Amino acid sequence: MKKFEEKTISTENIFQGRIIQLDVDTVSLPNGHTSKRELVRHPGAVAVIALTKEGKLLLVEQYRKPLEKSIVEIPAGKLEEGEKPEVTARRELEEETGYTTDELTWVNSFYTSPGFADELVHIYFTDNIRPLKEAIGTDEDEFVELLELTLEETEQLEKEQRVHDVKTSYALLFLKLKNKNI
Amino acid sequence: MKKFEEKTISTENIFQGRIIQLDVDTVSLPNGHTSKRELVRHPGAVAVIALTKEGKLLLVEQYRKPLEKSIVEIPAGKLEEGEKPEVTARRELEEETGYTTDELTWVNSFYTSPGFADELVHIYFTDNIRPLKEAIGTDEDEFVELLELTLEETEQLEKEQRVHDVKTSYALLFLKLKNKNI
Repeated sequence: MKKFEEKTISTENIFQGRIIQLDVDTVSLPNGHTSKRELVRHPGAVAVIALTKEGKLLLVEQYRKPLEKSIVEIPAGKLEEGEKPEVTARRELEEETGYTTDELTWVNSFYTSPGFADELVHIYFTDNIRPLKEAIGTDEDEFVELLELTLEETEQLEKEQRVHDVKTSYALLFLKLKNKNI
Repeated sequence: MKKFEEKTISTENIFQGRIIQLDVDTVSLPNGHTSKRELVRHPGAVAVIALTKEGKLLLVEQYRKPLEKSIVEIPAGKLEEGEKPEVTARRELEEETGYTTDELTWVNSFYTSPGFADELVHIYFTDNIRPLKEAIGTDEDEFVELLELTLEETEQLEKEQRVHDVKTSYALLFLKLKNKNI
């Protein structure tokens, strides 16, 4: 759908980083006026809602520099170039939690901040996981700690703002709804 | 919580835009190494889950330049400096839909992309709205069209990826769960 399309007149690349790229586009608006749009380019990401046999949710605590605090999130990570989201999802699950799975079900894919960024996040679900024989470990500049919590415990962390990101809040609603439907 | 804290060694401001700011921080990691963090600063935003008397959801279609397509979202907008989220929520509802309310219930607040941005989105709910006597209109560079859809119709748009952003997908789970609990 191209309703109210904003046609690009010119693009200025401001920044090309390790993870994001920033462009400022000059655009032609539907009323003929011109305006500027600040656009963050992101490779996209995956996140995994993974339950243990006991029904506990796998979560990782990590420091998030933009927030200047550590928060508790479902396992997630950026897409590598050319990598299929399901492959990334399994890899991130393995690296961040030490569990693996042969069974990932796609749940949803959505843009996180469509006003200024093109980050698309793919969410997967599994309740069929097993521990890896050998730990893989995370990227060298990534420090995470695994938690396995009940839905109620995770909701309590959300009340305390230690769970504080949208994909984990989405996962909580997804799991509550799933329980209602059983 | 400051677990695995990444201490700032220096900050380089790359860009100061109309909406976002981009910094690159050099940080000291928990293992003593240094790394770079790309940080998008955003003023924060609000979104409103608003139901008509008939139980239809208010949605707006608008062009999202980062995605190069128009999508259908719950009404939302950026916080103005010093503005309380609830005030922004009512203002955006009025500007984008022509409805107002005296009754906004806070639902949740979450970071949308904690890996690279500090955007915090506050979600509100109301099922008590009334049309404004006079339309206010949106910002001069903003073009939106109002839709009033049932939950099922909105879910269908999600399947077609015309609903394609996380706050609207979150709203859909929120409303489904609400219906189950009645």
